Amino acid sequence: MQDILEASTSADWREPDPENTLYLELASGRVVIELAPGFAPQHVANIRALAKAGWYDGLSINRSHDNFVVQWGDADGGDPAKARPLPDAAANKLPAEFARSAESLDFTVLPDHDGWAPQAGFAEGFPAARDPQAGLAWLTHCYGTVGAGRDMAPDSSLGNELYVVIGHAPRQLDRNITSVGRVIKGMELLSTLPRGTGPLGFYEQREQTVPIRAIRLASEVPAAERERLQLLRTDTATFEALVEARRNRRDDWYVHPAGHIDVCSVPLPVREAPKE
Amino acid sequence: MQDILEASTSADWREPDPENTLYLELASGRVVIELAPGFAPQHVANIRALAKAGWYDGLSINRSHDNFVVQWGDADGGDPAKARPLPDAAANKLPAEFARSAESLDFTVLPDHDGWAPQAGFAEGFPAARDPQAGLAWLTHCYGTVGAGRDMAPDSSLGNELYVVIGHAPRQLDRNITSVGRVIKGMELLSTLPRGTGPLGFYEQREQTVPIRAIRLASEVPAAERERLQLLRTDTATFEALVEARRNRRDDWYVHPAGHIDVCSVPLPVREAPKE
Repeated sequence: MQDILEASTSADWREPDPENTLYLELASGRVVIELAPGFAPQHVANIRALAKAGWYDGLSINRSHDNFVVQWGDADGGDPAKARPLPDAAANKLPAEFARSAESLDFTVLPDHDGWAPQAGFAEGFPAARDPQAGLAWLTHCYGTVGAGRDMAPDSSLGNELYVVIGHAPRQLDRNITSVGRVIKGMELLSTLPRGTGPLGFYEQREQTVPIRAIRLASEVPAAERERLQLLRTDTATFEALVEARRNRRDDWYVHPAGHIDVCSVPLPVREAPKE
Repeated sequence: MQDILEASTSADWREPDPENTLYLELASGRVVIELAPGFAPQHVANIRALAKAGWYDGLSINRSHDNFVVQWGDADGGDPAKARPLPDAAANKLPAEFARSAESLDFTVLPDHDGWAPQAGFAEGFPAARDPQAGLAWLTHCYGTVGAGRDMAPDSSLGNELYVVIGHAPRQLDRNITSVGRVIKGMELLSTLPRGTGPLGFYEQREQTVPIRAIRLASEVPAAERERLQLLRTDTATFEALVEARRNRRDDWYVHPAGHIDVCSVPLPVREAPKE
């Protein structure tokens, strides 16, 4: 894999759009999330509005469920008397965005059978699945996938409550909740948080919650304070070679190459932008 | 799932054999590992010998690699001058135990296509895979699986260096390294350790490593200090019902049951033994 990346050219890499890049600022550091407006346009627009209004600032991470998710939002969100009101610029009702039309979506299909979906692969740089017969595509729940928490009603998410997958891919969530993007840097700041001891991994005491200093769009942050990250494009010959190298490990250490890979086992390389 | 477990009978549960149960004692608490002598008899025998000799005591957790493994052993193991000598009772050479004969192994096959192996399912209470044509079975690398670290030679593991999976199932390791068991309690004490910043997630400074107070076989611990855990048997109608409930989630929250499950997504319930 290292050889393949070293042989890559600058055209193999892309820079995430600052309008679709979220910085979650914690005392321990910055988590960078790439949003997926191609899959959840209305949720992403709402998250942008909430971030621009500073709505998330001072809220907290309230849940850390081992081998499942870490979740953040308004710890008082369940109590109408104490919940932080949404800003005027944000919607207070959104449709579920569980899947999108697969038409006119560039989709790189993995060669291996998925099981959870008719096809799995990559679209717009994200791990995804597709049902050609139904003409639908959706983001897959992999380690690092970020989604919008919801209640019982499918259309009860707003992007004010967000979670990230910190364990084995919970693919059963696919098409049952709106995925909005994925963590591209700082994942370890979330995955190592102490697990909550309450039901579903919620922290039982308010003082156990982890304060969110701010959530900002990269486009709202001064250029000098932005990350300079690049992501390997998933529609290139370089990426195809990387997938094949991971399907059949040629490293000397491996004695039994699997000849198979699942969509959540494919690494999606991120690098610092090379100095100009 | 809760309904199914509540309807279970005592015959659905088993108690792990104290001779095959390992306690990893950390300052933060106890991690309980069930060993799998049916799959790695020689490694398990060696781990037993090392634990009985107190060989692991005072060693450390030296690696925490996000979305991959946490690993422990002798931080000086790479330096013959400083490495802790193995006790006489332990072997210093073992065969690779990557797979075993599938003959006379009770194997509960999952109904869904696996991809990484011809069949996946459960054997002796562990997630496993099987190749009926080759007549082989092996443990699958799932979240919580414990394996024996090795160098380049397939037969270079001894059970003195152990790792646990803390992320998405790295199934590419199946049949490439000897799995020796799985964590059945205290997983969060390992999964939340700060990630190492060196290559492969090793801690760069010795003071970052996490001391191991002791590793003991449950059978060597006074009865009053033992865990009283029970594991749901994987060869029962109750377990079959649980798998089916997870393949097709009937909880009201789900709008699109997957109709599929992978071997590492099936929960393997553990409970405190009911009071007599």
